[in-house]
Amino acid sequence: MVRPTSRPTRHLGTDDVVDWIRRVGLGRCIAQVAERIEFDFLRWPDFDKSARVACHSSDGVIELMPIADAERFAFKYVNGHPVNTRAGLPTVMAFGVLADVATGVPRLISELTLVTAIRTAAMSAVAARALARPGSRTMALIGNGAQSEFQALAMRDTLDIRALRLFDVDPAATAKLAANLAGQGLAITVCRSTAEALRGADIVTTVTADKQRATIVTPQMLEPGMHLNAVGGDCPGKTELHPQVLQRSRVFVEYEPQTRIEGDLQQMPADFPVTELWRVLAGSATGRRSADEVTVFDSVGFALEDFSALTVLHEAAQRLGLGREIDLVATPTDPKNLFGLLHREPAAHMIATQALTSATA
Amino acid sequence: MVRPTSRPTRHLGTDDVVDWIRRVGLGRCIAQVAERIEFDFLRWPDFDKSARVACHSSDGVIELMPIADAERFAFKYVNGHPVNTRAGLPTVMAFGVLADVATGVPRLISELTLVTAIRTAAMSAVAARALARPGSRTMALIGNGAQSEFQALAMRDTLDIRALRLFDVDPAATAKLAANLAGQGLAITVCRSTAEALRGADIVTTVTADKQRATIVTPQMLEPGMHLNAVGGDCPGKTELHPQVLQRSRVFVEYEPQTRIEGDLQQMPADFPVTELWRVLAGSATGRRSADEVTVFDSVGFALEDFSALTVLHEAAQRLGLGREIDLVATPTDPKNLFGLLHREPAAHMIATQALTSATA
Repeated sequence: MVRPTSRPTRHLGTDDVVDWIRRVGLGRCIAQVAERIEFDFLRWPDFDKSARVACHSSDGVIELMPIADAERFAFKYVNGHPVNTRAGLPTVMAFGVLADVATGVPRLISELTLVTAIRTAAMSAVAARALARPGSRTMALIGNGAQSEFQALAMRDTLDIRALRLFDVDPAATAKLAANLAGQGLAITVCRSTAEALRGADIVTTVTADKQRATIVTPQMLEPGMHLNAVGGDCPGKTELHPQVLQRSRVFVEYEPQTRIEGDLQQMPADFPVTELWRVLAGSATGRRSADEVTVFDSVGFALEDFSALTVLHEAAQRLGLGREIDLVATPTDPKNLFGLLHREPAAHMIATQALTSATA
Repeated sequence: MVRPTSRPTRHLGTDDVVDWIRRVGLGRCIAQVAERIEFDFLRWPDFDKSARVACHSSDGVIELMPIADAERFAFKYVNGHPVNTRAGLPTVMAFGVLADVATGVPRLISELTLVTAIRTAAMSAVAARALARPGSRTMALIGNGAQSEFQALAMRDTLDIRALRLFDVDPAATAKLAANLAGQGLAITVCRSTAEALRGADIVTTVTADKQRATIVTPQMLEPGMHLNAVGGDCPGKTELHPQVLQRSRVFVEYEPQTRIEGDLQQMPADFPVTELWRVLAGSATGRRSADEVTVFDSVGFALEDFSALTVLHEAAQRLGLGREIDLVATPTDPKNLFGLLHREPAAHMIATQALTSATA
């Protein structure tokens, strides 16, 4: 019998994830995650799926997103607090865990804020590749915040998008996006409204953050053959598309039970027809049927995408030696003698700590 | 505006938790958690509660247990794999997180295996104090594994239990428990069967681990006025009490929707009457009605108990300076410019790492 290591869990912080992205290249990271998402979506029935658990408050939401196959259990902790930016904090912060189903041992705990942006962009690219009109070259990008660069680069690399039409209610966000994308091979047009940005666009990506029912895209703005990549309508009471936009489109979703609650789909009757994307990828459902059809990917972010991203990240961490061991769960020498942990010799640093502080507590 | 610190999360590992327990004293740790559980149970309606999310496999279960009040969100990751001990791993491993509801920032991530044993024992003590016959001095302790010492000490300190009658199918487990409890002011009798152990006991604690329907306690073993603290029947298909034991008792639970699925209660019809313990603590429901009545606390472990324990632990960590900052979630300088994280100057250790490894990935 092989004794387990005393600290079986690897920890990746922000610097480690940044290290991964720099060494592999952002485009290649997105492509690897997209490839893994497709692989995992094609074995959809293998997963134990559930809608995420959400804790809503007046200013935001905290969610846990668990999923498992026969070998690995994964979950992500993620918040969404649009008010945070006023306090210098990100709207979205995330971390995730990958564990062995057979033993429950957590193998990886990682910062996932950057990875969430990567996997969301990768998911959008997988959906757009399956649903957008061939030859799409221009994308409108509405909402130019934290996730917008990732969406732009994923679409450039996956679909050969060459032109972006940008709009955000905050011109500083657009200026930041344009600056970050300078020299990346994308022709950029800054627009003064959503309607202007959508004119002539093949793909429309909405990635706005306000936690409210908003109508970013109205039916009047639609053009034949558009593909809408609706990312920002992703929790109850938070939408981006006018209901008639959905009525005039064919709507594709990740995991139907979750999207009915959280997506733009929440505005529609319970029997409004949608197609789960994995069926299109697997060839068991039809995607786009004509060049004139409007398609919508009502993306809310599903746990399986984080499972895929964590799997890619874990493999990269092992290959590149990223991160470090972390003492996340106790592994006593004698597993039936948890109490015995209290009587082990303390580690040297603890003796030092104890010497420096009084025993009164 | 105060800039948030770059690493707002504190991490406690096993050594830190051990440090806490040694400096405060195990008895006092259990007492503090018990006090906090009572405080939190008395404000039961303040919490956003849900049954835990469980991922079951052939050999075990991995669970996420979220809960929140208006200020704090907490969750615990915990597994249950009885087969693990054969591989030198604990049956139960756990860690937990405490976060701010207003912003989603995780404030604490801590090892919780030891703390789970403490909070389970504290919960048992709170329930026994409310339900057991006054003057109870003898406890039968069936199942002498990892949690048994904590149960014994909690009952000693809270109810003045002075005698223990021990039984486990594994004599080595009983020997370990007896050795660990030597000199702790408890008269110990090692018994050869559950029936023998129960003879003359005022309180019966069952804390067995097999993941199957077991019948540890049968109706023939009951004596008038016993209080049963049934801890080990805590997931679907895992029970300890014969159904007739429940029929002949008054049954108290933590959170009814969860216990109906997971507790010994899973064997009973959906309308079998139970009382949530918080109502007894709050005085809105009757506990024990006579000295002859048999009471059962069908404990499965509820997220609120971990919330209480994490709160006590967080306060102790701040007071005693336990643990360290951890880079769990990214906090970019400009929260709308997540992409900008990729172009910050790398930390010194990363430059060193990069110099040592090739750029191929």
